[in-house]
Amino acid sequence: MAQKPSIPKGTRDFGQQEMAERNYIFDTIRSVFKTYGYQQIETPSIENLSTLLGKYGDEGDKLLFRILNSGDAFSGIDYGQYRLEGDSYNSKALSLKVCEKGLRYDLTVPFARYVVQHQNEISFPFKRFQIQPVWRADRPQKGRYREFYQCDVDVIGSRSQVNELELVQMVDRVFSLLGIRVLIKINNRKVLTGFAEICGFPDRVVDITVAIDKLDKIGLEKVEEEMMEKGLTAEAVAVLRPILQLTGSTEEKLALMRGIMNGGSPSGIVSETGMKGLDELEELFGLIGAAGISHPVEIDLSLARGLNYYTGAIFEVKALDFPIGSICGGGRYDNLTGIFGLPDMSGVGISFGADRIYDVLKGLDKFPADLSRSTRVLFAVMGKEELRYSLSPAKALREAGISVEVFPDAGKLKKQFDYATKKNIPFISINGSEEIAAGTLNFKNLQTGEQKAFSKEDLDGILAFLA
Amino acid sequence: MAQKPSIPKGTRDFGQQEMAERNYIFDTIRSVFKTYGYQQIETPSIENLSTLLGKYGDEGDKLLFRILNSGDAFSGIDYGQYRLEGDSYNSKALSLKVCEKGLRYDLTVPFARYVVQHQNEISFPFKRFQIQPVWRADRPQKGRYREFYQCDVDVIGSRSQVNELELVQMVDRVFSLLGIRVLIKINNRKVLTGFAEICGFPDRVVDITVAIDKLDKIGLEKVEEEMMEKGLTAEAVAVLRPILQLTGSTEEKLALMRGIMNGGSPSGIVSETGMKGLDELEELFGLIGAAGISHPVEIDLSLARGLNYYTGAIFEVKALDFPIGSICGGGRYDNLTGIFGLPDMSGVGISFGADRIYDVLKGLDKFPADLSRSTRVLFAVMGKEELRYSLSPAKALREAGISVEVFPDAGKLKKQFDYATKKNIPFISINGSEEIAAGTLNFKNLQTGEQKAFSKEDLDGILAFLA
Repeated sequence: MAQKPSIPKGTRDFGQQEMAERNYIFDTIRSVFKTYGYQQIETPSIENLSTLLGKYGDEGDKLLFRILNSGDAFSGIDYGQYRLEGDSYNSKALSLKVCEKGLRYDLTVPFARYVVQHQNEISFPFKRFQIQPVWRADRPQKGRYREFYQCDVDVIGSRSQVNELELVQMVDRVFSLLGIRVLIKINNRKVLTGFAEICGFPDRVVDITVAIDKLDKIGLEKVEEEMMEKGLTAEAVAVLRPILQLTGSTEEKLALMRGIMNGGSPSGIVSETGMKGLDELEELFGLIGAAGISHPVEIDLSLARGLNYYTGAIFEVKALDFPIGSICGGGRYDNLTGIFGLPDMSGVGISFGADRIYDVLKGLDKFPADLSRSTRVLFAVMGKEELRYSLSPAKALREAGISVEVFPDAGKLKKQFDYATKKNIPFISINGSEEIAAGTLNFKNLQTGEQKAFSKEDLDGILAFLA
Repeated sequence: MAQKPSIPKGTRDFGQQEMAERNYIFDTIRSVFKTYGYQQIETPSIENLSTLLGKYGDEGDKLLFRILNSGDAFSGIDYGQYRLEGDSYNSKALSLKVCEKGLRYDLTVPFARYVVQHQNEISFPFKRFQIQPVWRADRPQKGRYREFYQCDVDVIGSRSQVNELELVQMVDRVFSLLGIRVLIKINNRKVLTGFAEICGFPDRVVDITVAIDKLDKIGLEKVEEEMMEKGLTAEAVAVLRPILQLTGSTEEKLALMRGIMNGGSPSGIVSETGMKGLDELEELFGLIGAAGISHPVEIDLSLARGLNYYTGAIFEVKALDFPIGSICGGGRYDNLTGIFGLPDMSGVGISFGADRIYDVLKGLDKFPADLSRSTRVLFAVMGKEELRYSLSPAKALREAGISVEVFPDAGKLKKQFDYATKKNIPFISINGSEEIAAGTLNFKNLQTGEQKAFSKEDLDGILAFLA
């Protein structure tokens, strides 16, 4: 009995069309990374679980795909020891007994591992990019896959804001090339820390950021209520009020925040960290102004991405013409490699969300029209002699870079025309005994109907007709 | 305590240099596949175990990497039932309880699954290629990895020898482009079947092929002895003798075999299958002659690759100037998709061994010299003003496709020169207050020492200097 073929939930097959579209995105991003001197690396799909566990929180640990040890994985274990009650067992503990390896969960932890492992071969600052699939045992749903590509670019070993600038420039360039209008939003973790400090609740960074994020939806009054429900005092809320009401140009925003951060708030508290964050933002926006950016860039204090690990700049990119979440994001981290024994390495990076960028390009119909075309000419053949006659011009055209097919099963032309139509092949060449005798080749443009005969040797003429 | 970072045995990190070299191989192969109208697809790394199990024999089943079910994988199992003796358990049976998915073991079975699953979207003959990693829980050793790329090209849905021809042409072109001299060896499973039939031992195809393969090493006499030890009669060996002594041109070999196969051997047996195989070989060599091939192509009756599943042509490619096994191989199969419910689909394909091709190119020093270079110009910067001054020319050069780095940490030049040297960056641009005042840019060729100043606006002049 034949099996009905299927693939696991949350995974995908990519056919020719999707491959061409996805490669277009990756090639565009890759070409930009390269012009900035970033080097491509690849790490194994399989990492030791000791490398992965504990790096993504308890939730992340649960989402790791674990690989069963090969050989006799299940012997030598006292299962009774792992029994909880009835036929329920401690799966977490047992999985550690039978699995030593897991699939890559993201590209960041393998990158940190790579930097530490190869630190003696690397010239710092190390600028790398990596485009590879990652796997997460998440519940599959629309737009969320268990296997998907990440596309990360990071520089490690430099604290300069020039690195942040380059990331912004690369984002700017990628989306210009792809034809997607975006808004680049920038925040800084140190500034958020500063707000928490000057309002007297230094451990409430997340609550404060989440509240700021709701401002557009629920308004100032409700946000302040919420902050008080979460335990902030009326005084603290008063300190934060001007930040919630922040408007104006980036320069105006920076100046206003600087005044507040520097002891000008009702609390009178000065936050050194906050001032450092404002310095960073100011330097970055200065560089962005000097470099010139095509897309709008703005400070967005509500950006709460990666608050647990980012220590400086936080980035997020939104498509302006298509309703989808962030299509790109990242930030600066100060101790990524510490866990693997290399402390004090500051880095900054961003990740391009290939699947969402794909959806935006599809939704806006921005993929180039000719991506779907692969074969340019089909030699349709009626018999063995015609087939042989087509081999040499087919070869010459291929060596000139043209994609050519010779229909393998000589015979009725209708089938061959249907094949050309289905595959969207724009030119067909049919040559019978007459052409063979004359040493000519006949090409037909299937879109315009135009037809032309060439001498077999006139490769230039043929190439011009097919162009 | 920091972990010492490592990766699992049999897996690899690829740095910039290796990535550039590997991409060169893949890009070359891909470009050739495309000129023949083959379409790229990708399938998920994770397949259902039901798709994979039983397709690679018992040995293959053992080499599958299995993925632990997520969630509470170990509960609901009566472990006592799987106990063999002591603390030894039936790992094979238990692994089926806790694992439903596995990692792709090759690209052939996922391709068959893909064809059946998407048969209604596909135009046949379906020409596809696929370049993706596969995983095998093999014992790692030199040159054998647990994660490695396969690079497969197949056409399914046509029995024409034109498909075989195209595979030979693509092999020919790929190795011409890579600069590797190869010998392309072709066999045919039906011919081997024919030999077994005419000598009266139709079920001894493998023994006979293995014996032919030893001819070069141990000589005719020993090979005949071995065949008789394996149970072939003296009469059978006499039938095979002229085949073992086969010499001459391909035409001569074909003619001689045709005579023997057509009842001309001492047994007088005619093998229809063998005759069909000779027809196929003759047609293929005729097409190869008509198309013109740069590398030598020969019949090799000892080719025993894939005797279990190939039904027609068998291919193998050897590097002529480097001692390594086959660098490319494949063949025709008649029922690949049958197991998934689509019978009578004949296909033929070959697989390029990327790791071995890499070793040959390394060993023969045939990688292009400029692969290792990524960044073309480094803007070395002494201070903030110089840094800002470099941003606009850096941007312009990048948009012209040149790979440019601006050293992010303005300061001492020695560190920046060292960085350029270590990264093999050929040009450096250093601009101080003088250049800024004059609006000029200074470029130095680090190899020749040549130095030249350009107006900031003279992009063409700068590009010519950097070319």
